[in-house]
Amino acid sequence: MTEIGIGLVGGGYMGKAHAVAYSAVGAVFNTALRPRLETIAATSKASAEAYARAYGFNRAAADWQDLVADPKVQAVVIASPQSTHRAIAEAAFAAGKPVFCEKPLGASLEDATAMTAAAEASRLPNMIGFNYVRTPATRFVRQLLAEGAIGDITWFRGEHTEDFLADPDLPANWRTEGRATGCMGDLAPHPVNCMLALMGPVAELNARIETVHATRPGPRGPVPVTNDDHAQIMLRFASGVMGHLYISRTATGRKMGYAYEIHGTKGGIRFDQEDQNAVWLYRAEGPEATRGYTRILTGPAHPDFLPFCQGPGHGTGYQDQIIIEARDFLQAIETGKPVWPTFRDGLAVSQIIETAHRSSADGRWHPVPPP
Amino acid sequence: MTEIGIGLVGGGYMGKAHAVAYSAVGAVFNTALRPRLETIAATSKASAEAYARAYGFNRAAADWQDLVADPKVQAVVIASPQSTHRAIAEAAFAAGKPVFCEKPLGASLEDATAMTAAAEASRLPNMIGFNYVRTPATRFVRQLLAEGAIGDITWFRGEHTEDFLADPDLPANWRTEGRATGCMGDLAPHPVNCMLALMGPVAELNARIETVHATRPGPRGPVPVTNDDHAQIMLRFASGVMGHLYISRTATGRKMGYAYEIHGTKGGIRFDQEDQNAVWLYRAEGPEATRGYTRILTGPAHPDFLPFCQGPGHGTGYQDQIIIEARDFLQAIETGKPVWPTFRDGLAVSQIIETAHRSSADGRWHPVPPP
Amino acid sequence: MTEIGIGLVGGGYMGKAHAVAYSAVGAVFNTALRPRLETIAATSKASAEAYARAYGFNRAAADWQDLVADPKVQAVVIASPQSTHRAIAEAAFAAGKPVFCEKPLGASLEDATAMTAAAEASRLPNMIGFNYVRTPATRFVRQLLAEGAIGDITWFRGEHTEDFLADPDLPANWRTEGRATGCMGDLAPHPVNCMLALMGPVAELNARIETVHATRPGPRGPVPVTNDDHAQIMLRFASGVMGHLYISRTATGRKMGYAYEIHGTKGGIRFDQEDQNAVWLYRAEGPEATRGYTRILTGPAHPDFLPFCQGPGHGTGYQDQIIIEARDFLQAIETGKPVWPTFRDGLAVSQIIETAHRSSADGRWHPVPPP
Amino acid sequence: MTEIGIGLVGGGYMGKAHAVAYSAVGAVFNTALRPRLETIAATSKASAEAYARAYGFNRAAADWQDLVADPKVQAVVIASPQSTHRAIAEAAFAAGKPVFCEKPLGASLEDATAMTAAAEASRLPNMIGFNYVRTPATRFVRQLLAEGAIGDITWFRGEHTEDFLADPDLPANWRTEGRATGCMGDLAPHPVNCMLALMGPVAELNARIETVHATRPGPRGPVPVTNDDHAQIMLRFASGVMGHLYISRTATGRKMGYAYEIHGTKGGIRFDQEDQNAVWLYRAEGPEATRGYTRILTGPAHPDFLPFCQGPGHGTGYQDQIIIEARDFLQAIETGKPVWPTFRDGLAVSQIIETAHRSSADGRWHPVPPP
Repeated sequence: MTEIGIGLVGGGYMGKAHAVAYSAVGAVFNTALRPRLETIAATSKASAEAYARAYGFNRAAADWQDLVADPKVQAVVIASPQSTHRAIAEAAFAAGKPVFCEKPLGASLEDATAMTAAAEASRLPNMIGFNYVRTPATRFVRQLLAEGAIGDITWFRGEHTEDFLADPDLPANWRTEGRATGCMGDLAPHPVNCMLALMGPVAELNARIETVHATRPGPRGPVPVTNDDHAQIMLRFASGVMGHLYISRTATGRKMGYAYEIHGTKGGIRFDQEDQNAVWLYRAEGPEATRGYTRILTGPAHPDFLPFCQGPGHGTGYQDQIIIEARDFLQAIETGKPVWPTFRDGLAVSQIIETAHRSSADGRWHPVPPP
Repeated sequence: MTEIGIGLVGGGYMGKAHAVAYSAVGAVFNTALRPRLETIAATSKASAEAYARAYGFNRAAADWQDLVADPKVQAVVIASPQSTHRAIAEAAFAAGKPVFCEKPLGASLEDATAMTAAAEASRLPNMIGFNYVRTPATRFVRQLLAEGAIGDITWFRGEHTEDFLADPDLPANWRTEGRATGCMGDLAPHPVNCMLALMGPVAELNARIETVHATRPGPRGPVPVTNDDHAQIMLRFASGVMGHLYISRTATGRKMGYAYEIHGTKGGIRFDQEDQNAVWLYRAEGPEATRGYTRILTGPAHPDFLPFCQGPGHGTGYQDQIIIEARDFLQAIETGKPVWPTFRDGLAVSQIIETAHRSSADGRWHPVPPP
Repeated sequence: MTEIGIGLVGGGYMGKAHAVAYSAVGAVFNTALRPRLETIAATSKASAEAYARAYGFNRAAADWQDLVADPKVQAVVIASPQSTHRAIAEAAFAAGKPVFCEKPLGASLEDATAMTAAAEASRLPNMIGFNYVRTPATRFVRQLLAEGAIGDITWFRGEHTEDFLADPDLPANWRTEGRATGCMGDLAPHPVNCMLALMGPVAELNARIETVHATRPGPRGPVPVTNDDHAQIMLRFASGVMGHLYISRTATGRKMGYAYEIHGTKGGIRFDQEDQNAVWLYRAEGPEATRGYTRILTGPAHPDFLPFCQGPGHGTGYQDQIIIEARDFLQAIETGKPVWPTFRDGLAVSQIIETAHRSSADGRWHPVPPP
Repeated sequence: MTEIGIGLVGGGYMGKAHAVAYSAVGAVFNTALRPRLETIAATSKASAEAYARAYGFNRAAADWQDLVADPKVQAVVIASPQSTHRAIAEAAFAAGKPVFCEKPLGASLEDATAMTAAAEASRLPNMIGFNYVRTPATRFVRQLLAEGAIGDITWFRGEHTEDFLADPDLPANWRTEGRATGCMGDLAPHPVNCMLALMGPVAELNARIETVHATRPGPRGPVPVTNDDHAQIMLRFASGVMGHLYISRTATGRKMGYAYEIHGTKGGIRFDQEDQNAVWLYRAEGPEATRGYTRILTGPAHPDFLPFCQGPGHGTGYQDQIIIEARDFLQAIETGKPVWPTFRDGLAVSQIIETAHRSSADGRWHPVPPP
């Protein structure tokens, strides 16, 4: 067993999730590389010190530059705001350190392109944090598709729907301005990544992106909302298959509507993160009288379930996904081999989002650049 | 109580459903007008005679012209192939007889336009058979929307998905050629009508209509499929709300996927005909900890449930919907007042389908004519 | 085709259901025997006349004796209160007329025994109206069990739960006094019959029958409730398998909780009438990773679905079950062969209910007489 | 922050879960007491050394006596086989060290009684590991019941059903002999504890405990199964309410059937661990037309959800429950106040199991001693 010093930028919600993950991952997976919670950086030195105490880091950095420069930091985990991702990642690669970056890759397609170029030029391990494709359920679906369990795919429908801005009386805030925090900037990366993981590249798309509530209450009257509440995209995949994606933060009643439905010539698959331990599988085989969608509970028979639980129905949770991310990042570092999803996968997501914005502007189908 | 002589054109699947409905409707609703199963017409005199015996009609007509001319026939029910609808309806109106026509109204927008003009010029009762909007569930949803139970609507997603042609090895047949029997001709009228009933008129749309399996086995090798297997439509309603509709006959695992989901500022609604006795309602009220989608079983508290059953959970079935159609047609005749949906509603459906075909051809948004 | 004159005793809820059924059954099933709605009897001549008009009977009888004596009445359908069943049935058999009797067979085990003896001595067709075992879902389950689809049965759990008396503030009424209208008299016959149909005879049982709300509001203060609100029964079937049954009219939230769950060595089955078009089937076969409960939508592939609908998901309703009962009774008359369930099946139900009352009194296991 | 040295006996499935929990709990909850993974004991020194390396303990003990005696061990966590619980706990209390013991408390009622006496005589913190009552879902149900959200309780039905021994062809093994590993010894503690947590003490019960498959294949022919496969218990709680519990390891299709259903005068509750992130709540309020069971997704609005996730639908998993147990044990040590469930709660469970065995033997109702 070898130790590796982890530097974490950001101690908020995702920062904490990564801190817990690096505390637990060794015991969970008996990893060869053992993470040492070395240095944490935040928006201020004081804040970093509070996080260091709470999470058990050895040192609080003055700022992220200080953290990247710390010789005891051998790998950098970025969990700070989108706008900071590019500078931190570029500095870390320049310092010869592997980088794990929370999604989305950068605040713009330009950022994402530059970060991917930097990562690949450095030949250092790089990963991006699309945690939801790591659940036993979605990993099992990928396996089913790879095995041809439902035949040739004929249709994909995906959505990521939440309702945190459904109420028009909620006041304007930092989420209601700026492209990065609109539904396409904030939510879309998850379902777009999922769709790519399940269906492969997108050839062309036709989108409509809209602001549902044009203004929201402000301290001195209505304030314009300057980003998007929901969006829909008709798609054609490179495989020729047609699909549809819907993203919304005004989907009243939906809490974690990361969901998809796939039709194939020999079966169908359904998944919804709101019932995250189940995959629904239909197979067009056997007598018609006994056919139907089967609710399969994920368990030890499915990918990446075993470490946590003895049997199906025990369930894995959100934190478990982050622990698996930590394991995979350690493995990428140890082996030097890329572990999916990398920065390039993050770039492919950014390309689709950018193309959707252009399509929404003119109402036409647009090709998507190859990844 | 007054008797009324019913003439039924067509004795196949839908013809039988109407024959049963007119047998039962008097006892079920204690109607003022009592239907008398007078005359039935079919593709031949012999066939009409067999149907007359099976269903209990007094007379078998030689053909539909004979039936329309029969003085004992006081109202005409059309359950014959689409291509015959226009001629029968025009003749019946010319003979001064109310007409109930199975969906779709005609085989083309031109037919539908002419039939609506003929119906309205005659000032006679006219109805079209969109049975699925008559279930207690969907009628309850209309009521909820009218009452503002979920606030202002912000999103609609509908689908009508079945899998009867999902298997590419199924041979070419009458369903795989001709626009009328493609998914847009055969299936779309139901969900389009439902969408109009729930959301009001469509202002514009952008569609893609595709043939999934380009050829199918024929007796002497592959036969081209000349109509559509599935289609998706992005929509903007006249209300300004955005929506999406998906229609498919290759949706493996779906048997009667007549389903929709509606978001509003204060709630959400979900329905799926595969769980036809339940409406799912979310209301953004009360403590967050007790919010969620409620599965409401239709029962005596809901519209048009009472006649059949004592309590929720007993369930109403397909035939029950046709009996309610019969009741409503009798009521339109008795009162002389139009009962929804009329031929004009059928015309609105045809306009959307026609516009979708044009949009699919050029990939752009197209306005839909006002109904 | 031959006509048969039907005499119906009772025009209330179940009477109407049977009137509709005999109106429709000919068209639905193209039956050889065609029912003629001949005579109806009710609590008074005036009431019978109103029913005759509403349902389309040729004649209103002065009372049930008048109806039974009517030479145009060739078969008697009993849908009057329990206390009258025995006298009507005995008179009808004495007059040489087949009898269909609504459940429960009589108001007591003594009644049920006498009625069964009379029926069997007469050698006339006799049937009892347990409609819920006639749904496509439950008929399919019987078929699955017969085929050994889930191997050897190891456990049965059934319930019939409703909530119409869950609220303790509901006033005392006719339902809250007298054994016949307690949960064991009123509700239990359905699930007990279902259990016998699925599992075969019961060898012994141990029950507890209770009144949940000892008093209810009356016009002049609290009134004692003199019958049972809910009951549970531990059972051992003649097959050696153990089971459990729960019956309740105070099951808040349950509307038609006619439900069961069966475990076998090779699979499991679940059904709930509140999702009446679905059967859930688990089969312990194939890779563990793809096992789960399959939700099978009843459709044309299942017993007695075809007459009503084209495909799964269309659904059959309560009235459809009564139409099927009518078909089966006509068939019993036509062929002279008994059609399940007969009076003897009703007697077996009464024996279990009676034994449960005795067991509840002393808290011990009691054997149940063979049927 | 103060450190506390943890000694863990057992490194298998549950031992690992506790090792991970004590690694992560500090970062997750920012606990005042910070656990130090000090010493681990297992069945041999070599085995303990392997576990120490894998989980990150400072030292491997020669045996549990060595561990208990270790002055750096300040609290003992017992995750070894049932038969060893009593001796370890007694020694730890004698050494003045708080004890967390995995369920069940001991291998017999005698053990449980002695352990509870030792714990209470020592006045040291003691806890027992019933993890499933710690999920956000079940904690929320406890809260709902305490608030009277469903009025006065009228019925409880619980089950714990799995299928790991459903197949009669599975060979005899250590699980198929000895009371401790029968369904009443191995599975029942969880649902019995849950029932007590939700419903309070049991006054009397009537049980039947059975072996479904009397023999199983052995290396030299059939081997008798000497413990129980499934059991049912009719219960009366001290509150007067009636209930039922079913425990099975032959419930084909059930993977983690830790489930319950509760009726009250004003509502109903349903939960099933196979859909562990949802609580179903029915409230008898508002118009009948909008009543139904609501599926509530657990989230930040519910107890003990916040530390892991931002919103409902993210889900908590099995390991999360064990982390919460660790937090609660640390809190009991820090404050000196008992944290539920304690050894006495484990004793109450043992009393019910013992009484059920006696009742099954004579088929009668038996009183249960007060806890």
